[in-house]
Amino acid sequence: MAEVERIGISLDKDLLAQFDGLIARQGYQSRSEAIRDLVRQQLSQERLADTQTEAVAAVVLVYDHHATKLTEKLVGLQHSHLLHAIASLHVHLDEHDCLEVIVLRGRVDEINRVGERILSMKGVKLGRVNLVAT
Amino acid sequence: MAEVERIGISLDKDLLAQFDGLIARQGYQSRSEAIRDLVRQQLSQERLADTQTEAVAAVVLVYDHHATKLTEKLVGLQHSHLLHAIASLHVHLDEHDCLEVIVLRGRVDEINRVGERILSMKGVKLGRVNLVAT
Amino acid sequence: MAEVERIGISLDKDLLAQFDGLIARQGYQSRSEAIRDLVRQQLSQERLADTQTEAVAAVVLVYDHHATKLTEKLVGLQHSHLLHAIASLHVHLDEHDCLEVIVLRGRVDEINRVGERILSMKGVKLGRVNLVAT
Amino acid sequence: MAEVERIGISLDKDLLAQFDGLIARQGYQSRSEAIRDLVRQQLSQERLADTQTEAVAAVVLVYDHHATKLTEKLVGLQHSHLLHAIASLHVHLDEHDCLEVIVLRGRVDEINRVGERILSMKGVKLGRVNLVAT
Repeated sequence: MAEVERIGISLDKDLLAQFDGLIARQGYQSRSEAIRDLVRQQLSQERLADTQTEAVAAVVLVYDHHATKLTEKLVGLQHSHLLHAIASLHVHLDEHDCLEVIVLRGRVDEINRVGERILSMKGVKLGRVNLVAT
Repeated sequence: MAEVERIGISLDKDLLAQFDGLIARQGYQSRSEAIRDLVRQQLSQERLADTQTEAVAAVVLVYDHHATKLTEKLVGLQHSHLLHAIASLHVHLDEHDCLEVIVLRGRVDEINRVGERILSMKGVKLGRVNLVAT
Repeated sequence: MAEVERIGISLDKDLLAQFDGLIARQGYQSRSEAIRDLVRQQLSQERLADTQTEAVAAVVLVYDHHATKLTEKLVGLQHSHLLHAIASLHVHLDEHDCLEVIVLRGRVDEINRVGERILSMKGVKLGRVNLVAT
Repeated sequence: MAEVERIGISLDKDLLAQFDGLIARQGYQSRSEAIRDLVRQQLSQERLADTQTEAVAAVVLVYDHHATKLTEKLVGLQHSHLLHAIASLHVHLDEHDCLEVIVLRGRVDEINRVGERILSMKGVKLGRVNLVAT
């Protein structure tokens, strides 16, 4: 179990009331939980700004599965030596389009480069790279 | 097959040269392909700004699988009547943490609301909602 | 003076140490100050998601001041009845390009619409709308 | 005058019709103008990803002008030797709060560092760094 520390934070009464309203709407059980998430997001953001950091990424893309050889190219990329593809999920959206999520592990700059390559393939319509610091 | 139209676009020579460099670095095969992607991204962004639009979302989250009943809560949410959960992907990151991708279909505002609920659950450390207009 | 309240927050020792490092790098004087900023940013983000909210915006644009009548059109827009233009700042970047910051007050959806109009004017090269909840 | 080149782009009829609708709503006069803007935004984004690039930034911040010595600190920072502050704009929002826009020139990483320093000062409530590639 991780050791827990308790710290005191001072806020304007008014700001605190607004914060309590927000976290109730979001569904948080406690202020500590909500603030821990804010802190983690800030830390994660700072870490990912360093392009040499190791990270995990979920690359989300929509593509037309009729596009020639796209499926093979995507599989090929996932097996490139620079990155470690962990898993992928494939969902049929309609007659033409598929949504695919590829989970990769690697350095931030390499992930971004592969992300750009995927998004530029013929047949890929939309895509986004979700970096998660580890 | 979709009917294709050819349009003429005028650009400064210098801007065109820079664009050619960019799409070569990104790996595009043709200018048409690159511009089609830019156009699609713009359209998708506009559509998603309307919170009543139907969309597909890939919700990416990292959580500690030791957190009490989180897994059940996540499954419960995916079966809520507001949204249609299509599929999910689960990856073990280390001893504690899992990355999960949940693909949902629904109205933009409902997806965002469920996204917030998931991110506020005890044990969920990081998360992001990727909306894709359909 | 606003009334100040003190609340207790529990965090893992490790997370707290990382947070202390982050806020030292950012230059914060105290944890309370850093957390207050995180809380305010969250609140502001939620408020601006409601397009009917009143907000202030700083619209940042780069344009070629040789473009025909652009300056007049920009001034015209600032005097439109929908929005209240408060002030603007003009900086010469080089022989051709100017950077202009226009501070507006109005409803979020109206600000966004005017922002789009400005960015689509002939001669405007780049632009961004910075919404600030008030 | 910059030399203009005309290129041909092929798009699906349906995508083109949607694009025409979008740019009409945005207020563009021609497809060329709209596509030029998309291309410039892409180029600018790529350039700013390189933290060694020279850029211009508009730092937008909201602060309480009663905060001790904040105004002096802000002026001090603008005169730091790392960056070249070009101009600033100050707007009174209400009894307490001011909106200030500071236009800076410098390297992307230095701008970001100063941006973080400003945002962490006691009394600064919200802020954003708008980088513009030059």
